[in-house]
Amino acid sequence: MKDQYYMNKAIQLAKKGMYTARPNPIVGCIITKKNRIVGTGWHQKSGEYHAEVYAINMAGLLSKNATAYISLEPCNHFGKTPPCCDLIISSGIKRVVVAILDPNPIMSGKSIEYLKSAGISVTIGIMSEEAKKINLGFFKRMTTGIPWIQLKMAISIDGKIAMESGESKWITGIHARKDTHQFRALSSAILSTSKTILNDNPTLTVRYCIEKFHQKKYVQPVRIIIDSKNQIQPKHKIIKDDTSEIWLIKLHQDQNIWPKHVKQIIISKYKKNINLKELFKLLGVYQINTVFVECGAHLFSSMIQLKLVDEIILYIAPKMLGNVAQPLYYELQKFTLDKVKKFIFTHIKKIGSDIRIILKPIF
Amino acid sequence: MKDQYYMNKAIQLAKKGMYTARPNPIVGCIITKKNRIVGTGWHQKSGEYHAEVYAINMAGLLSKNATAYISLEPCNHFGKTPPCCDLIISSGIKRVVVAILDPNPIMSGKSIEYLKSAGISVTIGIMSEEAKKINLGFFKRMTTGIPWIQLKMAISIDGKIAMESGESKWITGIHARKDTHQFRALSSAILSTSKTILNDNPTLTVRYCIEKFHQKKYVQPVRIIIDSKNQIQPKHKIIKDDTSEIWLIKLHQDQNIWPKHVKQIIISKYKKNINLKELFKLLGVYQINTVFVECGAHLFSSMIQLKLVDEIILYIAPKMLGNVAQPLYYELQKFTLDKVKKFIFTHIKKIGSDIRIILKPIF
Repeated sequence: MKDQYYMNKAIQLAKKGMYTARPNPIVGCIITKKNRIVGTGWHQKSGEYHAEVYAINMAGLLSKNATAYISLEPCNHFGKTPPCCDLIISSGIKRVVVAILDPNPIMSGKSIEYLKSAGISVTIGIMSEEAKKINLGFFKRMTTGIPWIQLKMAISIDGKIAMESGESKWITGIHARKDTHQFRALSSAILSTSKTILNDNPTLTVRYCIEKFHQKKYVQPVRIIIDSKNQIQPKHKIIKDDTSEIWLIKLHQDQNIWPKHVKQIIISKYKKNINLKELFKLLGVYQINTVFVECGAHLFSSMIQLKLVDEIILYIAPKMLGNVAQPLYYELQKFTLDKVKKFIFTHIKKIGSDIRIILKPIF
Repeated sequence: MKDQYYMNKAIQLAKKGMYTARPNPIVGCIITKKNRIVGTGWHQKSGEYHAEVYAINMAGLLSKNATAYISLEPCNHFGKTPPCCDLIISSGIKRVVVAILDPNPIMSGKSIEYLKSAGISVTIGIMSEEAKKINLGFFKRMTTGIPWIQLKMAISIDGKIAMESGESKWITGIHARKDTHQFRALSSAILSTSKTILNDNPTLTVRYCIEKFHQKKYVQPVRIIIDSKNQIQPKHKIIKDDTSEIWLIKLHQDQNIWPKHVKQIIISKYKKNINLKELFKLLGVYQINTVFVECGAHLFSSMIQLKLVDEIILYIAPKMLGNVAQPLYYELQKFTLDKVKKFIFTHIKKIGSDIRIILKPIF
């Protein structure tokens, strides 16, 4: 019970880094001695100290014979900072409690062995589920090579995303639209399509949710635009906004002169369009932990059919647009009812005058 | 505060009659003397004693100089039972607290005057909102002549009610389908169309929710079927089920020999179909307080467009059926987004693996 108590504190502490630590996982560390907390730390940003370093520094000489609670297996290699394991050993800590092993298959469990061989008692698996939940993107990327992918859509009660004319500004109210920015703020990248850019002219930056992301070290998510027909031009509003990097996903380079914050990435063709699986694998290589997708119904439908979705964030507005309005979901195949795409509702919440539901696909 | 305390008790007591009192309103009565409850009563069934009679009988001689809390203005006329006002006066009660006046324009306030003229002190308006809420159907019928109308639908996340083929059994899960029976059980009538009967072959009876409606005096809702083309035949399953009355709503009588529990009601034509406004007015005349409509998308859409809806009960299943599946809502006119039909979400609840939302239209 005591282990769980302190591990929970370490996990809560880790969350302080949720807006800034990427592409690193968020980690919290609590050092206790004789049932008193003598050191705390959390990881703020890649390249800066890990949680353990802050906690051990705070504890100072009290580290001797203390217990360290760490929400993720400590590192045992020289990355941008020296290995935490050596610091733990030299600090005199005699017991280490780890919530969950490093998901990186090459690293997983190695630090535990190292600490044990140095005579440190190690307990693993305390609140491992919770510890994984706060790093879904990092865990998925490390184990599959692909980021954690969330799709966001705004629909009417009758499942429409726009009028027949294409008009869709705005189906949901201001509270729902602001709520979206929380999800954006937590993401490594926001992904959209040239069609959405041409229709709605968004900048895809995080603007609301200031209180949460407005930390000195906050970096806006990368903005990724799928532009298979090279329709995005330097004149577009999103391009002129240099708040964060923009990656244009294309089949071919173009001859435009692009500002410094815009990169072109070439992906191979699949059925006349961008090879989405290749794209998301590449995003994994580029250390994108989580992608928040804000797009139209066609990409939305393709992503579901390709099983490239971990979560759907759906805002439902209390309106009915009618049968000729534009649908949420295009199904390419004909099924009977027992074969249609199925999901699980994981969250339901009223947001202003709208509802937000979160769904997980069952594949 | 004391008045509110006892009135709340009277309202809670009234609810005991929610499954049986129709077409009468539900009413509760509490009699107090020196801050003690000496009598309680609630109205169970049309033709039987009103709440006040039970409460005064229970109080007996203690009624003298007591206070009566009644959730609805007492009656002052010979209906199926003698007027309650005379009983109140003869019992010696010296103060009457009434939550809300009788909504019947001919009766409203008359009993209050009568009690006052007999020297009884009367307070009105204590918890009037709550007292109205428990009798929405009765209040609406008395003030407008039209029943309280609820539409029920089951849809997928993408707003579809059936596959392209018409297959719709079942979009929602068993828990949602059972939940429907609670609404049925509370209704004076369940309304559907011949199309739904021919497609789904339902009996439209209350079968689940046993614990709630299984009172000796429970009468199943009237089953109303709109059958403008005389398609329903004596052989259909619903007709063979004589659990409750069936009213066939038609443009013309047919020559069938119908069982005793089946009635034909002729309504005039409006745009090739049943005149829905005339129908619902007639249902008001027939003392139907509440109608629970379970139909297809066309009647659903017409009802909304004719503003014949007080509440929509929508079950959303975690499935996507795709763009060619059958839509929830047919809009006849072309609008811009600011002119589409709007609603308010009043309740959201997870029911098994589905969601139930309740909406009120904004007309």
